[in-house]
Amino acid sequence: MKASHAHLVTLKEAPADAEIVSQKLMIRAGMIRRIAAGIYSWLPLGLRSLRKVEAIVREEMNRAGAVEVLLPVVQPAELWQESGRWEHYGPELLRFKDRHERDFVLGPTHEEVITDLVRRDLKSYRQLPRHFYQIQTKFRDEIRPRFGVMRAREFIMKDGYSFHADFTDLEREYRNMYDTYTRIFTRLGLKFRAVAADTGSIGGTGSHEFHVIADTGEDDIAYCPASSYAANVELAEALPPPGPRPEPREPLVKVHTPGVKTIADLVDFLHIPIERTVKAIVVEGEDGAPVLLLLRGDHELNEIKAQKLPGIKNPLTFADEAAIRATFGAGPGSLGPIGFPGRIIADRTVAKMADFVIGANEDEHHYTGANLGRDFPEPEVADLRNVVAGDPSPDGKGTLEICRGIEVGHIFQLRTKYSEAMHCTFLDAEGRERPMEMGCYGIGVSRILGAAIEQNHDERGILWPAAIAPFEVVICPIGAAKSPMVAEAAEAIYRDCLAAGLDVVLDDRNERPGAMFADWELVGVPWRVVVSERGLAAGRYEVQHRREREARTLPIGEVVAELAASINAEKKPLG
Amino acid sequence: MKASHAHLVTLKEAPADAEIVSQKLMIRAGMIRRIAAGIYSWLPLGLRSLRKVEAIVREEMNRAGAVEVLLPVVQPAELWQESGRWEHYGPELLRFKDRHERDFVLGPTHEEVITDLVRRDLKSYRQLPRHFYQIQTKFRDEIRPRFGVMRAREFIMKDGYSFHADFTDLEREYRNMYDTYTRIFTRLGLKFRAVAADTGSIGGTGSHEFHVIADTGEDDIAYCPASSYAANVELAEALPPPGPRPEPREPLVKVHTPGVKTIADLVDFLHIPIERTVKAIVVEGEDGAPVLLLLRGDHELNEIKAQKLPGIKNPLTFADEAAIRATFGAGPGSLGPIGFPGRIIADRTVAKMADFVIGANEDEHHYTGANLGRDFPEPEVADLRNVVAGDPSPDGKGTLEICRGIEVGHIFQLRTKYSEAMHCTFLDAEGRERPMEMGCYGIGVSRILGAAIEQNHDERGILWPAAIAPFEVVICPIGAAKSPMVAEAAEAIYRDCLAAGLDVVLDDRNERPGAMFADWELVGVPWRVVVSERGLAAGRYEVQHRREREARTLPIGEVVAELAASINAEKKPLG
Repeated sequence: MKASHAHLVTLKEAPADAEIVSQKLMIRAGMIRRIAAGIYSWLPLGLRSLRKVEAIVREEMNRAGAVEVLLPVVQPAELWQESGRWEHYGPELLRFKDRHERDFVLGPTHEEVITDLVRRDLKSYRQLPRHFYQIQTKFRDEIRPRFGVMRAREFIMKDGYSFHADFTDLEREYRNMYDTYTRIFTRLGLKFRAVAADTGSIGGTGSHEFHVIADTGEDDIAYCPASSYAANVELAEALPPPGPRPEPREPLVKVHTPGVKTIADLVDFLHIPIERTVKAIVVEGEDGAPVLLLLRGDHELNEIKAQKLPGIKNPLTFADEAAIRATFGAGPGSLGPIGFPGRIIADRTVAKMADFVIGANEDEHHYTGANLGRDFPEPEVADLRNVVAGDPSPDGKGTLEICRGIEVGHIFQLRTKYSEAMHCTFLDAEGRERPMEMGCYGIGVSRILGAAIEQNHDERGILWPAAIAPFEVVICPIGAAKSPMVAEAAEAIYRDCLAAGLDVVLDDRNERPGAMFADWELVGVPWRVVVSERGLAAGRYEVQHRREREARTLPIGEVVAELAASINAEKKPLG
Repeated sequence: MKASHAHLVTLKEAPADAEIVSQKLMIRAGMIRRIAAGIYSWLPLGLRSLRKVEAIVREEMNRAGAVEVLLPVVQPAELWQESGRWEHYGPELLRFKDRHERDFVLGPTHEEVITDLVRRDLKSYRQLPRHFYQIQTKFRDEIRPRFGVMRAREFIMKDGYSFHADFTDLEREYRNMYDTYTRIFTRLGLKFRAVAADTGSIGGTGSHEFHVIADTGEDDIAYCPASSYAANVELAEALPPPGPRPEPREPLVKVHTPGVKTIADLVDFLHIPIERTVKAIVVEGEDGAPVLLLLRGDHELNEIKAQKLPGIKNPLTFADEAAIRATFGAGPGSLGPIGFPGRIIADRTVAKMADFVIGANEDEHHYTGANLGRDFPEPEVADLRNVVAGDPSPDGKGTLEICRGIEVGHIFQLRTKYSEAMHCTFLDAEGRERPMEMGCYGIGVSRILGAAIEQNHDERGILWPAAIAPFEVVICPIGAAKSPMVAEAAEAIYRDCLAAGLDVVLDDRNERPGAMFADWELVGVPWRVVVSERGLAAGRYEVQHRREREARTLPIGEVVAELAASINAEKKPLG
């Protein structure tokens, strides 16, 4: 394509309401334009990248045995009433009436529509399994749409739904989709992690999220560089430290700690490492009685883990200061287990500590040299905390790192939630009517572009992976308006790139080199070839990758083959 | 693809509410399913055909120099208020409020959105012309959606919008699109006509419709088989018959015509050809005075033509019987020009008639041997009638035929309607601010499939053109469940077809031959190859085109090459 034709409309400044880097860069690079809050038009450059994502998703879904359909944007309310979601979905489900006053919704997702289709057309176990997917426009009426295509109201999603005769077959397809999503995000050229939504191992879990790794991500992810383990920090298991608990060596000593209210105060006051302190937190039991949770001073309580423990009130409820004083005779900054007759639960790490410092249940007093079993009864032990970097990986294969991620995919075992509500049944081999087992599998197609930019950008603009760049190569002629030789040479290498199957754009706008280079660096085209009279005289063109600081020169005759080799290597087709 | 995977769900009967043949066949063949009135899901087979239409449209639009964008389904009301269409569009424009009570519409078309985009990003004549198009989901809240995808509420459309510095350049692009649409519908394998929305010649007209020819079409089209002339019957010009008016030969004779009220009565009573009769119709002039229109007895008054004549009330208003009696002294069945002192306008055909029969302005009396100029003053002459088959073509190149058509495309010169209302201006070479000239160009992508079936079907099902068939070839093995030899041979020729680039489906369902053949005839796959033990023994497979009554047998080794040659010939790539 010629640049004059590509509708290249770059902006020096992002609009004032753009909040994050991908949003700013997509607008500045002329990929999208905002039409209303959370609603964008895709300009030609943006659409080129979007279509490349779609094509990879489509290829891999077809390869995996799913079959494409196209379901409507506008859905009748009856189906949502049948599933129960008409009541439960909340205001993100945009509802409206047609001219005959019938209720409809703008589809945020399509479980109801596909389940209705399947129950009408599939009746026998012989017709199962089936997996339908679509790549289609969705609408969610976000209360506060923001971040460009990352949290838009109108967006493009790949959503797939699979139907099975039994759970074993659903699990097979779930693994198939786990592998397929891994292939998709690998082919897109993105650093990503599959994150377990509960235990972190694929077998038997009902849900995985796929996150693009980026410092600006909204979610904290714990992962193990030595294995495929990854989980949302809040869901990752914190293992007990290895080895036995050390023997007590210090006597229990009550010390006066004037002004100490927090662990930080305590560490400062006593000049001890924070790892020698234990904090005590009071929550309510199911019966309303206080329960004391013990965590190492530098660890964070994980409320999800705590509220899942038997006998603990769910959702987790912290005791207020009055109740704490009534029970312990001290404020929250000086609590401890010694002398407390109620239920005590120690985090696994605390259970391996000796000679620690803890509150004395007397304001501005703490104990040093405290020990479990010796100074208070052995407590219950549980995993109560968030993992931290350096913790052992729960799969036993190394230590955990923490990173931030942007969710771009989600696979989920729906089981029979919709098939039971909507009577989507089949006859099994024995002629019994049974609800189908269902899985659903989503990819935020338009969101991927925002996430890719969050992961890949610098101060000059976007750094697209070759697989989803709007163009792979840009040809920049210098002074073509005045030099027919340069113009012809640029056309010639442009045609050679096309013939080699490269996705190339020729900048025929006759811009000055500085403006031209800045535009394409902003847009983030991976490879730039500069055609100039000097280059022609030397028989070599300047070739530069967007991530390289310096240009190389290559003999003119080798440029196209070199680009093709590099680009094909980067796009690395999978086996 | 294997049939087990293609979600082949055929129905013996169409649902009771299906009204037309394409709707019935698309549902029976498992291409679409109705979700609500005018809202359909596309099943895999239907989507395959839809994507083929999209691909051809996209290729030809790109080739023509248009560039693809993707605009939102949900549009803010402000843009429609700015263009004035918020007031004028009527209830087909579906309006709703979001959770913040802001007004939005579901886009039935995108003039406002694209004009807003262009005015923001394009400022100079140097950036013009530009042509943006998209292939996208639209919604029109039809009061009575019907006919399946032919008049759906949610549908897929290609809409393009061009922007120009002057009218001459708009006209150039309009011709470019006329040619592009001609290429598109030719490649789709459809019989079609480009129909002028006014004079019937491309130069200088503001609008053409593209119609797929089908007996079940809603519009009557006059066309000339010897040229490219085509126009809506109501807009086609009826030329004067050639040659001079014959000399009068009969005397004027008043005859008693008891019981004669209509032209048909008159023809029966007098035993004369209808072409010798003239009917008189009384309409109101702008001043309210009666005007007498004369048409040959077998011709139909064209009200659009009549009401455009100077001095005639617009919209055309027929005199009531009381007014007629007061003026003429007779009822509508016995009127004529002789003795009428007011304005008389004769159709061009009447102006070339002599010795005709006409009402005598006396109930149950007519004149025979009536002649213009001799028996009443020479009247005004105008084109007052609808054309009929056999009329000379207005372009002078042969005679007209009449057919019925389904509108599937429309090109239109918007001129500055939207650019003026929305201040979409540019600076010309002299630095003056001017509104852009605009054109718009639509294709009903999903509607095309319905129209293609209306044109191509028989009692067994659909007869797809190869270019848009869900598959080009189906391999039908006979008895593969019991014969591994047949199963292997079917797989082998399936793979050979794939290798030859054919879009092939292998029926691996182990159905009986009758059911299998009936399914694929209903679906309308153009070519069928039957693999059987008998065929293997003879070294020849049965090959049959969907339009052929009998199968041929071909040596096994020649089947794929023969199919590829036929299919590629039918898909006829254009130069």
